[in-house]
Amino acid sequence: MKLSELVQIFTAYQGDRCRMDPSLDPEIEQVASLEESVAGALSYVSQPGTMAEWIEKTPAAALILPLNDELIERAQAHGLAWAAVPNPRLAFAQAIAEFYQPYRLPAQVHPTAVIAPGTQLGKDISIGAHVVIPEGCTIGNEVCIHPGVVLYPGVSIGDRTTLHANCVIHERSQVGADCVVQCGAVIGGEGFGFVPVREGWFKMHQSGYVVLEDGVEIGCNSTVDRPAVGTTRIGRNTKVDNQVQIGHDVRIGENGAIAAQGGLAGGARLGNRVILAGQVGVSNRVTIADGVTVTSKSGVHADIVTPGSTMSGFPIISHKLWLRAATLFGRLPEIQKRLSRLEQASKSPE
Amino acid sequence: MKLSELVQIFTAYQGDRCRMDPSLDPEIEQVASLEESVAGALSYVSQPGTMAEWIEKTPAAALILPLNDELIERAQAHGLAWAAVPNPRLAFAQAIAEFYQPYRLPAQVHPTAVIAPGTQLGKDISIGAHVVIPEGCTIGNEVCIHPGVVLYPGVSIGDRTTLHANCVIHERSQVGADCVVQCGAVIGGEGFGFVPVREGWFKMHQSGYVVLEDGVEIGCNSTVDRPAVGTTRIGRNTKVDNQVQIGHDVRIGENGAIAAQGGLAGGARLGNRVILAGQVGVSNRVTIADGVTVTSKSGVHADIVTPGSTMSGFPIISHKLWLRAATLFGRLPEIQKRLSRLEQASKSPE
Amino acid sequence: MKLSELVQIFTAYQGDRCRMDPSLDPEIEQVASLEESVAGALSYVSQPGTMAEWIEKTPAAALILPLNDELIERAQAHGLAWAAVPNPRLAFAQAIAEFYQPYRLPAQVHPTAVIAPGTQLGKDISIGAHVVIPEGCTIGNEVCIHPGVVLYPGVSIGDRTTLHANCVIHERSQVGADCVVQCGAVIGGEGFGFVPVREGWFKMHQSGYVVLEDGVEIGCNSTVDRPAVGTTRIGRNTKVDNQVQIGHDVRIGENGAIAAQGGLAGGARLGNRVILAGQVGVSNRVTIADGVTVTSKSGVHADIVTPGSTMSGFPIISHKLWLRAATLFGRLPEIQKRLSRLEQASKSPE
Repeated sequence: MKLSELVQIFTAYQGDRCRMDPSLDPEIEQVASLEESVAGALSYVSQPGTMAEWIEKTPAAALILPLNDELIERAQAHGLAWAAVPNPRLAFAQAIAEFYQPYRLPAQVHPTAVIAPGTQLGKDISIGAHVVIPEGCTIGNEVCIHPGVVLYPGVSIGDRTTLHANCVIHERSQVGADCVVQCGAVIGGEGFGFVPVREGWFKMHQSGYVVLEDGVEIGCNSTVDRPAVGTTRIGRNTKVDNQVQIGHDVRIGENGAIAAQGGLAGGARLGNRVILAGQVGVSNRVTIADGVTVTSKSGVHADIVTPGSTMSGFPIISHKLWLRAATLFGRLPEIQKRLSRLEQASKSPE
Repeated sequence: MKLSELVQIFTAYQGDRCRMDPSLDPEIEQVASLEESVAGALSYVSQPGTMAEWIEKTPAAALILPLNDELIERAQAHGLAWAAVPNPRLAFAQAIAEFYQPYRLPAQVHPTAVIAPGTQLGKDISIGAHVVIPEGCTIGNEVCIHPGVVLYPGVSIGDRTTLHANCVIHERSQVGADCVVQCGAVIGGEGFGFVPVREGWFKMHQSGYVVLEDGVEIGCNSTVDRPAVGTTRIGRNTKVDNQVQIGHDVRIGENGAIAAQGGLAGGARLGNRVILAGQVGVSNRVTIADGVTVTSKSGVHADIVTPGSTMSGFPIISHKLWLRAATLFGRLPEIQKRLSRLEQASKSPE
Repeated sequence: MKLSELVQIFTAYQGDRCRMDPSLDPEIEQVASLEESVAGALSYVSQPGTMAEWIEKTPAAALILPLNDELIERAQAHGLAWAAVPNPRLAFAQAIAEFYQPYRLPAQVHPTAVIAPGTQLGKDISIGAHVVIPEGCTIGNEVCIHPGVVLYPGVSIGDRTTLHANCVIHERSQVGADCVVQCGAVIGGEGFGFVPVREGWFKMHQSGYVVLEDGVEIGCNSTVDRPAVGTTRIGRNTKVDNQVQIGHDVRIGENGAIAAQGGLAGGARLGNRVILAGQVGVSNRVTIADGVTVTSKSGVHADIVTPGSTMSGFPIISHKLWLRAATLFGRLPEIQKRLSRLEQASKSPE
């Protein structure tokens, strides 16, 4: 594939600010990271800065660059083909999609799968070995269910959704179209509902169910619990990383992202486009406004009401304030010493 | 089911302070949360406060209320049926149990299950597709083992215990009666035992085993490790949420609760009725007294010796102190500025 | 087995400083912890200190002791057999290896395993029930694959490696020799790669793969992601505990250890012999030097450049400084009060 063909693909998505030097139009055979690039490969520089020196030494056939004249001139001076685009990382993702096809099971039902008679199965589905689909389930068109997946009764799976190996979908869950549930994830397990009583715990049965709207992805070994009544809902196109815990009765809006090992306690409410970095915790029934970003390891103990804000720490404060306060934490011994010195001075007779 | 029948059920458990207006005794057809209630449903208000305004607008057939005269009068004035009880959340859990039956596999052994000849199987058991039970296991009466569960040799499972899909029970584990192991949990895996030596690590084999006493529940994708020697033990009726890590040689008392993503390092000792909130960590060999509560994201690095205390932070301090200190964290830049101002003033000639 | 035979084994590995009293040479029948020891058992005291009083009351047949004259005399005075060694915990691990053989599947391929025709299978392999091995995989000699394991296409598994029940190995992963992948772990899942675009997220396909070098162990329900391009690599003999998340494009050196619930974001680089304690987080593209230890719950947001250093907190500071600063955190209310008092005093007319 010629570089110019790729630039056409970039342009279709990123607009006509994408450009290249037509006299430098090599054949592109693969994609590779800048650090590990090879002859024939396309690599990318995401932004002007420390990676620039790679331009002189890369064996790559061409580089995707940001719209930055200095970088472009540097490549040009070196005789290296380039494509300059508004969003280099996006262009690289577009390029990968040209060279790489994710693995799909063959479109067949494996003979070792155990499927309840009368199950409604869509067209062109792939069902792997040892999959279990009990009564009352509905499987959409072009669904791909990898080996070892277990569905409980009454589950529906939308068109083109992929369930990876050994994940489990509990009773009554509704998984939308174009979703991905990664290996080992558990959708719709029982919410952690125990009422304290004199003798210990009274179990609150979890009669609700989970809804994953279209385009949702759930990472490996993540867990999404169903509630006692009603629904736990993850909105359209929200992406959830590995080992994330989403408690019963949580509602998450559209186009959000939750990084690995985040935990949302029961009843949390996240708006649209909320981004939680790694290992964030959100307390019971807390509400987070649209477009909020919470930085890693923070603990959201109270509502975040300002849309688009960036918050940090535990308890959460503005990210800007947190950066300053967190630096001073390591200076507490010094602060304490300075304070003692002042006290000493104020006590001493003058 | 009439509301009055439900009130009888509440009374049986919560005592005769439960009451209602016998002239308002509707037919209850289902349970629903207050926010999503519908005609014919029973919902609940857990305590006087912000939810009270729902009383005027809910389509519910009846509400469970706390023993609060103002709320009762408000419902009464609105002509809305009510049941007032000491513990509304408990009553709601009791009501759910009347309307909802958790899914159980049919009482049969699926033909695709692989069960070692001579395995001791109890009465009325349910064993799902592709379950694996090797030599030396004992399965109690009315046990329910969902599809894809793998047992290692020498495991015993007590009466009425449920093992959910794709969980694994390692060799020699003893799971009591009335336990629940949720999907993807791993009971009895090897403790993380590596002795540092000149060449790297010397593996310490884990010859011990795990005991889950009666009534224990282990959440989805949680892990409970077996020790090098002896036992890792979780006491009667202790409930463990999703994605919790319980290290080798840990001992947990009765009636405790460990919320999602908690981690207990090797040799930790928890008393009875200990509650750990989400994402708590407990260090190696630390002891926690009976009835202690540790709030979310805390790190218990040292013994907690006062029974019934509530502790927070990392390192842990009393929750009351933590609340005040944590608020001041965000004021560190201001504290630093005030300190500098004082230093400046003390240096200036007077 | 006589104690003297065990001492020979200790000596072979730990050198000739290992010693015992040849006149006290009991038969050892098992190993047990000091707290739960029994007649005929060998137990150990790791270091002089609080455990010493057990010497007088243990029913053990013999104790492993550190090279400490006081402890040895105490045992001798009590007529208790002992073996003194440079590293008692290592000796105990050596002793366990004499008395305990980890469970291995019988060396056969279970008839319910689904293995693609033409798969390259080594000698003396054990493949359990319901294992799935699709096209293009290579299985080394003496490999043991427990029930329910799913491989994706093009995976290679080195000699003597064990894959525990229900783990998943994604396409193109290369697992070395003498590795252990524990139950429910997922190796080579898709990295969390989504580029933000106007309409939400553009998925970056993950065309790379994961390499586990020889002797690597991955804990239960841990996840190791493959990158968009290139490799995620874990170096020789590095040990990873349960529920650890290792992001796409991470590189970890040799002989490291990562305790439970740690999380490494995409592109992190760890040197050799790096130790991360429990619940540590490492940010995107951060580099950690050889021999660094990071204490529990810390957040490594920036490079750690000093080899062999011990770091703590979030943001990380030296462990020594963190200990002092963390203690002062709980004294913030007092610091605030003292500051106010000084301000009051400086304002008051003198």
